[in-house]
Amino acid sequence: MQMEPSTRFVALAEGAFGPITSKTANGCIRYSPERVVAILDSTRVGQTAQSVLGFGGEIPVLATLDEAMALGPTALLVGVAPTGGQLPAPWRETIAEALRRGLDVWSGLHYFLGDDPVLMEAAAEGEARIFDLRRPPKDLGVAAGRVRDVAASVVLTVGSDCNIGKMTSQVQLRDALRERGERVAFAATGQTGILVEGWGIAVDAVIADFISGASERLVLQAAANADIVLVEGQGSIIHPSYSGVTYGLLHGSLPHAMVLCHQPSRKSINKQEWVKIPPLSELIEMHEYVVRPLRPAKVIAIALNTFDLSDEEARAAIAAAEAETGLPATDVVRYDPTPVVDAILDFHRERAG
Amino acid sequence: MQMEPSTRFVALAEGAFGPITSKTANGCIRYSPERVVAILDSTRVGQTAQSVLGFGGEIPVLATLDEAMALGPTALLVGVAPTGGQLPAPWRETIAEALRRGLDVWSGLHYFLGDDPVLMEAAAEGEARIFDLRRPPKDLGVAAGRVRDVAASVVLTVGSDCNIGKMTSQVQLRDALRERGERVAFAATGQTGILVEGWGIAVDAVIADFISGASERLVLQAAANADIVLVEGQGSIIHPSYSGVTYGLLHGSLPHAMVLCHQPSRKSINKQEWVKIPPLSELIEMHEYVVRPLRPAKVIAIALNTFDLSDEEARAAIAAAEAETGLPATDVVRYDPTPVVDAILDFHRERAG
Repeated sequence: MQMEPSTRFVALAEGAFGPITSKTANGCIRYSPERVVAILDSTRVGQTAQSVLGFGGEIPVLATLDEAMALGPTALLVGVAPTGGQLPAPWRETIAEALRRGLDVWSGLHYFLGDDPVLMEAAAEGEARIFDLRRPPKDLGVAAGRVRDVAASVVLTVGSDCNIGKMTSQVQLRDALRERGERVAFAATGQTGILVEGWGIAVDAVIADFISGASERLVLQAAANADIVLVEGQGSIIHPSYSGVTYGLLHGSLPHAMVLCHQPSRKSINKQEWVKIPPLSELIEMHEYVVRPLRPAKVIAIALNTFDLSDEEARAAIAAAEAETGLPATDVVRYDPTPVVDAILDFHRERAG
Repeated sequence: MQMEPSTRFVALAEGAFGPITSKTANGCIRYSPERVVAILDSTRVGQTAQSVLGFGGEIPVLATLDEAMALGPTALLVGVAPTGGQLPAPWRETIAEALRRGLDVWSGLHYFLGDDPVLMEAAAEGEARIFDLRRPPKDLGVAAGRVRDVAASVVLTVGSDCNIGKMTSQVQLRDALRERGERVAFAATGQTGILVEGWGIAVDAVIADFISGASERLVLQAAANADIVLVEGQGSIIHPSYSGVTYGLLHGSLPHAMVLCHQPSRKSINKQEWVKIPPLSELIEMHEYVVRPLRPAKVIAIALNTFDLSDEEARAAIAAAEAETGLPATDVVRYDPTPVVDAILDFHRERAG
């Protein structure tokens, strides 16, 4: 699964193009906008990536694949990861049509398009390929603590909820650390991260027994050519639906340090309002507590997602987070990521001696 | 997947028949010894279930399927769950031979025998069936906290490690509670429990994102006709390989109370000696801490596995556990389970009001 430089996507996000809902498309638009020729969402026709997301420039939102074909895409990206990962029925026809027209299809759904007989037939007809980003390697096993021998500093993003910047923060931090001349690797653990980085394992899609094994393998692979490994976190240790993946990743990757991601405006878990998000200081304590029996690690910085706050509100939230936790904090996407970058570098240099 | 009353197993445990290693066979031998006609392990020929395990009576250990056929089995049970769940190569031929001879095959491996072309052909040839205990339901989704509406008292076994009695304890407690006239259900979460109970979901074999969803579904199903639901725990919250499954089950089943299982002679995680097992009081604190953000629950009793201790040592370990934790403790298999049964009933009655 290696993306060609010439790949140009039309991103399918029907009825769901927005800052929160079209996570996979958004990751691609943010980090490789030149790869995206159009977004399909008939409910937002006439808008652009910029007007809907606040980034991505003039990439147009169109209603049909027909219109998008004029812009020369080479592939269709299934740009949304719906709850449960299943394939919404009406999308199936659009995907089949794209394949028949010769577009490759990239998908992050749990439902593997490459196993769907109708889509396989459409792919054969159009001589197109299907890439299922979440398809796990065939030879995974359980974790064995081998990650303890890794010399690189392993930094994991953790968070108060899903979809608040654990992937995005790591990509920003990767770029900033690279600019500083560091040998840094990004270990992608979700379909969007894999799409952005070009490799990785979707740890939420492996057999449950192998979550830690997949995490371990990823870290070992990323550490082979890096001094700092930034691991993309998943879910939240308090998320009633996804905490198993979160803990498996935490205990399988055994980070030396953690960066806590949070969206200040979010007070409870998205779609599970009965689970209140504790204060940052408590979240820090919880994360340090649950890794301690395996390998003690500290939260060393806070990455806030302030996209829904005014500049003034965002700066106040950052100041409040710093005051509450005593740790450097910022929104690494919106503002200069230096405070978090410095925290990682200081930690790494002290650890490396 | 429903077992017929006439099912008679030959249990394949080649090179691994023992108290720790042949977990799946042992569960079947303990709870339905009348179903097992022989065990295959060429390294222990001449021994019996009783002499190797301390239970199971005169079930003989034989070297070959040929010899076992004389005892009239209707099925082969793959009686070991090796690390990673893969199929040891030499077993494949024995399984194929059993199928060709018309024996059904029951397996708890992650590797689904029913997907193996050679074994499928053998099954067709012998008109036999393959039952993969770990095969997950097709329509699983993520958890949504629906388990909070369950009226029954949900009691989960948790533990300091794998394979120390989380399943066995629940089966003993189920029987004891049933004798007291309680409407009790056992929710099996692993291949051995499913084999013993006849239904369940192997939560370690589902897609990682669906661990909690599978746990939720199990509890809802078990609670439909019961006032007390005993959920089989998995792994340990400090297990570097399996903690993801443990946490997913914990947060998906949302127990009202927990029973902590421990083997006093075990000081570190099996095969991961670098992870030390904390004192019981600390383990209790940890479990109560990690469920608190979702639904507070207490550890209400201790179930010790003392099979490798003398009677005197076992009684001393039980007394020490009670003194350390202030909770009722016993070995519910070896001794009268009343202390733990009473703790569950007291909790249930107080909760039910």
